[in-house]
Amino acid sequence: MYSYIHDGAEIYRQSFATIRAESDLSSYDDDVERVVVRMIHACGQTDLPADVVATPGLVRAARSALDAGAPILCDATMVASGVTRRRLPADNDVLCLLGDPRTPGLAEQLHTTRTAAAVHLWEPMLEGAVVAIGNAPTALFALLEQIDAGGPRPAAVVGAPVGFIGAAESCAALAERADLEFITVLGRRGGSAITAAAVNALASPVE
Amino acid sequence: MYSYIHDGAEIYRQSFATIRAESDLSSYDDDVERVVVRMIHACGQTDLPADVVATPGLVRAARSALDAGAPILCDATMVASGVTRRRLPADNDVLCLLGDPRTPGLAEQLHTTRTAAAVHLWEPMLEGAVVAIGNAPTALFALLEQIDAGGPRPAAVVGAPVGFIGAAESCAALAERADLEFITVLGRRGGSAITAAAVNALASPVE
Repeated sequence: MYSYIHDGAEIYRQSFATIRAESDLSSYDDDVERVVVRMIHACGQTDLPADVVATPGLVRAARSALDAGAPILCDATMVASGVTRRRLPADNDVLCLLGDPRTPGLAEQLHTTRTAAAVHLWEPMLEGAVVAIGNAPTALFALLEQIDAGGPRPAAVVGAPVGFIGAAESCAALAERADLEFITVLGRRGGSAITAAAVNALASPVE
Repeated sequence: MYSYIHDGAEIYRQSFATIRAESDLSSYDDDVERVVVRMIHACGQTDLPADVVATPGLVRAARSALDAGAPILCDATMVASGVTRRRLPADNDVLCLLGDPRTPGLAEQLHTTRTAAAVHLWEPMLEGAVVAIGNAPTALFALLEQIDAGGPRPAAVVGAPVGFIGAAESCAALAERADLEFITVLGRRGGSAITAAAVNALASPVE
């Protein structure tokens, strides 16, 4: 027999107490802080805030969009799978178009990755949407390029691609945007769990 | 316009070259090394190997089980979602029973989390299965307790719960088992992306 806490609510309580005791959250407003705490919880690393950049208006923008029924557009099925449907205020659609039958052909045509091609398919739903990119740097770059080309504008962007080629650069590009509400993780860290946790926090009413 | 690599295959190639250049993989046999490389790729952190412990027989055991049609039993839907179905050698089932209608009642009856209760529902499928636990420490503890109680034995265990309460302890408990083939991430790191990446590597034929 092993000795451990079996009570889910108590595990959550102690987890969040540990995060708040060990993390430097002083640079965030209360509403963004709640999102960062959830992102730390998803990766087990209390030094994550050193790399997290968010706009002050992020939470209000994302929450208003979701309340109004905006869809959540995800770059990876794991991100979509991690979004807790019962937290969503308006039974919002959670979509990943990576498996769309048009995606492989479009990727070939555009000379880019399938994940970036799937971002192009977001166009009819992108205006006012909440975007959640937790895997592919090419998806985040493609989003920024579409916006710069005069395309539709999302209400809020969670942009946290992970990895070694392009991830740091794509997050740095997002962090420099003055025209978007966003949260991002600078450097190589990121991923579907951190991204889904941020979306879940954004979808939750302030306690 | 941003400047970045658009070619998915080239992104993969450069990613894995970076991982091999920056990570200390010297403690692993070739077959386990391939799995660790994929786990690093999923989290963007080349210091991950410092925390990864695996048994030398892991890859052979997992691969034989999958070839023979064994199911992959996951503690979280995000883990199951991250398993690439087309890599599986025998169209293997990938199951997460967290949403099973029996789970909430069983959790109440056993005074444990729903994730741990879902592990109890694995029993009829657990013998010879590949287990993938990437979220809940209570699930990993519950698995080890079931085995100690004389329950069915999985062929291989990917055990990488993430977080602050119980994650490090559950991974340490797995790392001490001489009776199982496993791979685990000591400490607080872990998660569904790392876990799914390990399963995907175990499912892939050696190149």
